[in-house]
Amino acid sequence: MSETNEVRWNHLTAAELNVLAERGAVVLLPIGSTEQHGPHLPTGVDDFMAAEVCRRAAHMVDKRTPVVVAPSIPFGLAEHHMLFGGTLTLSLSTLHALLRDLCRSIDRAGFDWILIVNGHGGNMTALHALITELTAELSISVGFTNYFTAGRMVIRETLETQDGLMHACEGETSMVMAALPHLVRTQELDKAVGPAITLPAESTDPVYFAVSFRVITESGVAGNGDKATAEKGERILDGCAQALADLLVTRFRRR
Amino acid sequence: MSETNEVRWNHLTAAELNVLAERGAVVLLPIGSTEQHGPHLPTGVDDFMAAEVCRRAAHMVDKRTPVVVAPSIPFGLAEHHMLFGGTLTLSLSTLHALLRDLCRSIDRAGFDWILIVNGHGGNMTALHALITELTAELSISVGFTNYFTAGRMVIRETLETQDGLMHACEGETSMVMAALPHLVRTQELDKAVGPAITLPAESTDPVYFAVSFRVITESGVAGNGDKATAEKGERILDGCAQALADLLVTRFRRR
Amino acid sequence: MSETNEVRWNHLTAAELNVLAERGAVVLLPIGSTEQHGPHLPTGVDDFMAAEVCRRAAHMVDKRTPVVVAPSIPFGLAEHHMLFGGTLTLSLSTLHALLRDLCRSIDRAGFDWILIVNGHGGNMTALHALITELTAELSISVGFTNYFTAGRMVIRETLETQDGLMHACEGETSMVMAALPHLVRTQELDKAVGPAITLPAESTDPVYFAVSFRVITESGVAGNGDKATAEKGERILDGCAQALADLLVTRFRRR
Amino acid sequence: MSETNEVRWNHLTAAELNVLAERGAVVLLPIGSTEQHGPHLPTGVDDFMAAEVCRRAAHMVDKRTPVVVAPSIPFGLAEHHMLFGGTLTLSLSTLHALLRDLCRSIDRAGFDWILIVNGHGGNMTALHALITELTAELSISVGFTNYFTAGRMVIRETLETQDGLMHACEGETSMVMAALPHLVRTQELDKAVGPAITLPAESTDPVYFAVSFRVITESGVAGNGDKATAEKGERILDGCAQALADLLVTRFRRR
Amino acid sequence: MSETNEVRWNHLTAAELNVLAERGAVVLLPIGSTEQHGPHLPTGVDDFMAAEVCRRAAHMVDKRTPVVVAPSIPFGLAEHHMLFGGTLTLSLSTLHALLRDLCRSIDRAGFDWILIVNGHGGNMTALHALITELTAELSISVGFTNYFTAGRMVIRETLETQDGLMHACEGETSMVMAALPHLVRTQELDKAVGPAITLPAESTDPVYFAVSFRVITESGVAGNGDKATAEKGERILDGCAQALADLLVTRFRRR
Amino acid sequence: MSETNEVRWNHLTAAELNVLAERGAVVLLPIGSTEQHGPHLPTGVDDFMAAEVCRRAAHMVDKRTPVVVAPSIPFGLAEHHMLFGGTLTLSLSTLHALLRDLCRSIDRAGFDWILIVNGHGGNMTALHALITELTAELSISVGFTNYFTAGRMVIRETLETQDGLMHACEGETSMVMAALPHLVRTQELDKAVGPAITLPAESTDPVYFAVSFRVITESGVAGNGDKATAEKGERILDGCAQALADLLVTRFRRR
Repeated sequence: MSETNEVRWNHLTAAELNVLAERGAVVLLPIGSTEQHGPHLPTGVDDFMAAEVCRRAAHMVDKRTPVVVAPSIPFGLAEHHMLFGGTLTLSLSTLHALLRDLCRSIDRAGFDWILIVNGHGGNMTALHALITELTAELSISVGFTNYFTAGRMVIRETLETQDGLMHACEGETSMVMAALPHLVRTQELDKAVGPAITLPAESTDPVYFAVSFRVITESGVAGNGDKATAEKGERILDGCAQALADLLVTRFRRR
Repeated sequence: MSETNEVRWNHLTAAELNVLAERGAVVLLPIGSTEQHGPHLPTGVDDFMAAEVCRRAAHMVDKRTPVVVAPSIPFGLAEHHMLFGGTLTLSLSTLHALLRDLCRSIDRAGFDWILIVNGHGGNMTALHALITELTAELSISVGFTNYFTAGRMVIRETLETQDGLMHACEGETSMVMAALPHLVRTQELDKAVGPAITLPAESTDPVYFAVSFRVITESGVAGNGDKATAEKGERILDGCAQALADLLVTRFRRR
Repeated sequence: MSETNEVRWNHLTAAELNVLAERGAVVLLPIGSTEQHGPHLPTGVDDFMAAEVCRRAAHMVDKRTPVVVAPSIPFGLAEHHMLFGGTLTLSLSTLHALLRDLCRSIDRAGFDWILIVNGHGGNMTALHALITELTAELSISVGFTNYFTAGRMVIRETLETQDGLMHACEGETSMVMAALPHLVRTQELDKAVGPAITLPAESTDPVYFAVSFRVITESGVAGNGDKATAEKGERILDGCAQALADLLVTRFRRR
Repeated sequence: MSETNEVRWNHLTAAELNVLAERGAVVLLPIGSTEQHGPHLPTGVDDFMAAEVCRRAAHMVDKRTPVVVAPSIPFGLAEHHMLFGGTLTLSLSTLHALLRDLCRSIDRAGFDWILIVNGHGGNMTALHALITELTAELSISVGFTNYFTAGRMVIRETLETQDGLMHACEGETSMVMAALPHLVRTQELDKAVGPAITLPAESTDPVYFAVSFRVITESGVAGNGDKATAEKGERILDGCAQALADLLVTRFRRR
Repeated sequence: MSETNEVRWNHLTAAELNVLAERGAVVLLPIGSTEQHGPHLPTGVDDFMAAEVCRRAAHMVDKRTPVVVAPSIPFGLAEHHMLFGGTLTLSLSTLHALLRDLCRSIDRAGFDWILIVNGHGGNMTALHALITELTAELSISVGFTNYFTAGRMVIRETLETQDGLMHACEGETSMVMAALPHLVRTQELDKAVGPAITLPAESTDPVYFAVSFRVITESGVAGNGDKATAEKGERILDGCAQALADLLVTRFRRR
Repeated sequence: MSETNEVRWNHLTAAELNVLAERGAVVLLPIGSTEQHGPHLPTGVDDFMAAEVCRRAAHMVDKRTPVVVAPSIPFGLAEHHMLFGGTLTLSLSTLHALLRDLCRSIDRAGFDWILIVNGHGGNMTALHALITELTAELSISVGFTNYFTAGRMVIRETLETQDGLMHACEGETSMVMAALPHLVRTQELDKAVGPAITLPAESTDPVYFAVSFRVITESGVAGNGDKATAEKGERILDGCAQALADLLVTRFRRR
């Protein structure tokens, strides 16, 4: 294996990946969504942030916990954003098939641990259910987390106007300002506001209906994108990555 | 339509159901699981309790909210209980297909509102994801709740040793004592104990792995079945039914 | 295992089911349909009667032929009744998937013999074909019967105006009068008449077309529901159960 | 359209088929199986005979009932013959998909009537169930018959040692002697015997298990192939074709 | 095995096929299409010619290369011909399922080598992709060729006005004149002309769109059917068969 | 819409994408593969190059041909590379489902033209067949090209030792040197050699078998990676992009 610090699967050669598999590396599989993110953010935010946190975490772990970051899946379940335009969505069965094939390939490539790292609220319950199914189907060990669940504490402490991530909000806008500042349409920031929401998977409303996001917010934003700063974003990204790295070190120990 | 107070779909005639459809009735679709429930409870508990709460709630609503209770689905996602024996489980895609056909049939029978009422923790995230999918596939209005989420407060207030329902626990055992007392193996009650758990869908652990329930508990019980009483059970059943009835009256109003 | 005489899977504990599996018990899997049954009978008749006959038969067999009755499947193939309202139907592929998962679960629970006991004419050819397919797919031993085929003789001898079961007819109405008398709308009995039919699977017409049942009968009845009595019903139920019990004793002997 | 008397779809040009569609022609779709047929008959018997009867019938109808014979499907459900070798079998879902595509194509080609004409006992219940399903799926009019059901009477009258068709038997061997005499291995005829059977779809045994045909017969024959004559075969083929032609004239009248 | 020179699977008995399997025979699986072929040719051309070349080739190989010709699949991918009428088409997934079942059956019948021999341009890329998939799915050795690719040279040398096969063209018309002369509508030959095309799978146009064949040609013909002669046809059929036979001898040697 | 020159879907906001849809923009959908690319190249090459050419082409077209580049699909059909490790592969049906969902989403987002731009030889025939299928399924206009087919001429003219692209070869290595020079393991370049191949989809061998790439080359390279230079790579990338841009301007004109 070269001296590289590279952690991205698609930036590594097959031989380097084979060495990592032999060393018992954990494979992080980021998944996001390509969907409307208000007037000020690009449609790729969920994908970009999931991958960003994975890469940062992979560099934070110690040498005894090798980590590879698989190519990020830029597509998720986004039917509720379709009315806004600019949105790509998968059906549940397609997502199932895609994850099945990828997990089976990772297993065949010699890796024993897979952790799916999600960046999109709309994927949460589906991924939970699919992990259960894939574990039975493939007899492999595959885990699931959301970068914003791992980093729940730092998000709460950092945000001034929200308790957690919403959509194209104080938190997401801050992270894009920190990681990909040229992608924020700053002239639209004053319109980047909408009502507060709870992620469906974490809602305490006892009844769930699948409703279009446009019923909730005209702007496509839930939360306060106008309160974002790059400093908050950096703190969140760093904190989520650190939380994920801690999970990797404590939960995926060598055998 | 006859003078009957009957609320069960399969106890009603087609003509009676057609009248209810015309009157805008909500269809409750209970779903449970057939799975091990410790040494003292029968395998049908989740199915029985979901249906019991639905029937009670259907009788509590006022006349302006007609309700029909569809035949309960006795099968769910129970792979994690398979190692104990006595357990039946569906794959996710089978559950999807089954719900699709039932919801489509209910829609074709002239009903406009469907509420799936779940009684099994292992179905929670899957049903959430499937409701989202079915709403897009069928262009119908279908909601989802768990009877124990609707009645979360009364459960917490009633139980002495648990914060919420676990498995074959203080709560479930109490409910069976209240509704189907002959089905409790009382001589096994002292063994009906196990570690406390949180339902996976409500867990705060940031990482999720699908693990066999036998890794968690040798007895098949999580919580304290030995602290159950019929009085607690009646209070929980009544409280959950009342909570569900309140949801029906406030959320499914006539159009 | 407890001293119980209980035969229903979902009324038994996992440990009791494990003992029955070890003893080589046959699993009866009743399947019905939820569909219009004329002006006088509830939609659940086929499901109720299949399960009723199974339970009776399970209590008739001798000790050397232990029997478990799985939770009854209340859904079948009922497209031909959809125009009447009040009817739920599955697609053939959903029924296939459901039976596959249930048979596989029963096999994994340690049982070696499964007998599907059908109560709905519209399921007959499909179940025959699916049994063939499941036997190849799962490498298990699964048989198929209809309770009214097993009890063909007693039905013919008992009915005064029909040669065999039709739909919501002299036979079915009699059985509901015997087993669930409160579910018969007696004030509608005089309308409970329709033309004689032969079950499609037993028809001697060389050409088969799938036609709506409404083309055949306006009332939803085929046969003479108005000639029903509880005595006939009891005789049929008892006779069908005895015939099924005989099959169990002679065909599913211990290994 | 040319003056040809041709009835085979694949021997006709597209323009000729368009004229037939316009004239309201019935499309016969023969289906057989490729499977062991004892020591003396080729594996294609079921396919050959179904197509033969269709072609003969198509030439017997009067001018007011135009008929087209689609390319025969040489594959069916033959799992029960696999142990003998030389056998091709489809899964039920493949057969479903194949018939769905063919019926949809025939419908798109402008034809309004399809009659599937089966030549293989093992296809009977599956085709019955699939016709029901396809009728609902495609909203087209598709019927189903077996050539030996249509011609049940002539078969019974002609055969000396059997009540109906069995397998590689007095009847099938006679038909091949009549239609394709060079394909009968006459030197094997004395071994062409086996026990009498009833076609599963017509069996009066109340319990059905899918068993390998080799459990039933070592020779692969059920019935008495050694009693076959070409005269019997001609009489059966002619009689079945006449019966099918009668059905076409009486049941598929012009609209 | 009899002294027969028979090579057709469905003309052979199971025992004869078992001997051939034991001797290491290659199974040729011809596939065509049933689709419009201009005003002068029947719809079955692709199927007929694929099977014809296979049978001829099977008779040309030496004794050390036994060959069986499976029943020809008369259905392929012909969506692009649907607008002309008279055409049957499969979906890609149906074709996949059909080939999977047939290849698996051939494998279970004891044969180790399968070569799919295609006669329809519209199947080419699909079969290439499906072979790749089936090889992975079934772990068997299955190859793919087109009779007109194997015989590419003789086709080019024989045709006077075309470089290769087109559709209902100089080449195809010639072959039908040679093998099935009664099926050519000679009175339509002067209309049997259309623009030159390249088979999509061999096109050098860098962009591919799936377009209806009717956009390309009003007559349904591509190429010059009016330049056909039986002599050319015989030369092509013989040459393609010889080329295929050579491939069989050189590429499928005994193990 | 902002003044940005941005062409990447996931770097654009929903509102900006809606404007582009209204202006009739063509959506390029790059697809690659994540698979072994010899000892010297990373596994993501096919994905990176397809996306690179798309982005360059999108910037080359004139203002009257607006273009959007969808998120690149990093996964393809790579079963033949699995034995090397480091490789991810999809099944054909998963790829079908993924493309179906993406094309349908793009259509629902208001775009009328989709061009799939492939960068992986192993996807070629499958994409050809799937485009045909998707066109029928979705009734949309979707085209397919490979960047190396569009730029076939410039590749041939540029390479010194090859006639066209092979695998991890003179051409691919040159392109990575030009676009992502830090990803080339230069110390491995002398081992980056292997036998010459023709892409399966362009092979003139009349018989196709799906064989593992390891049978062809031990190093995982086909062609001469050691002859690569950044200058050649730049020329190829620029030439392919220009060829693609020309196709866009000439073939996707405004309506």
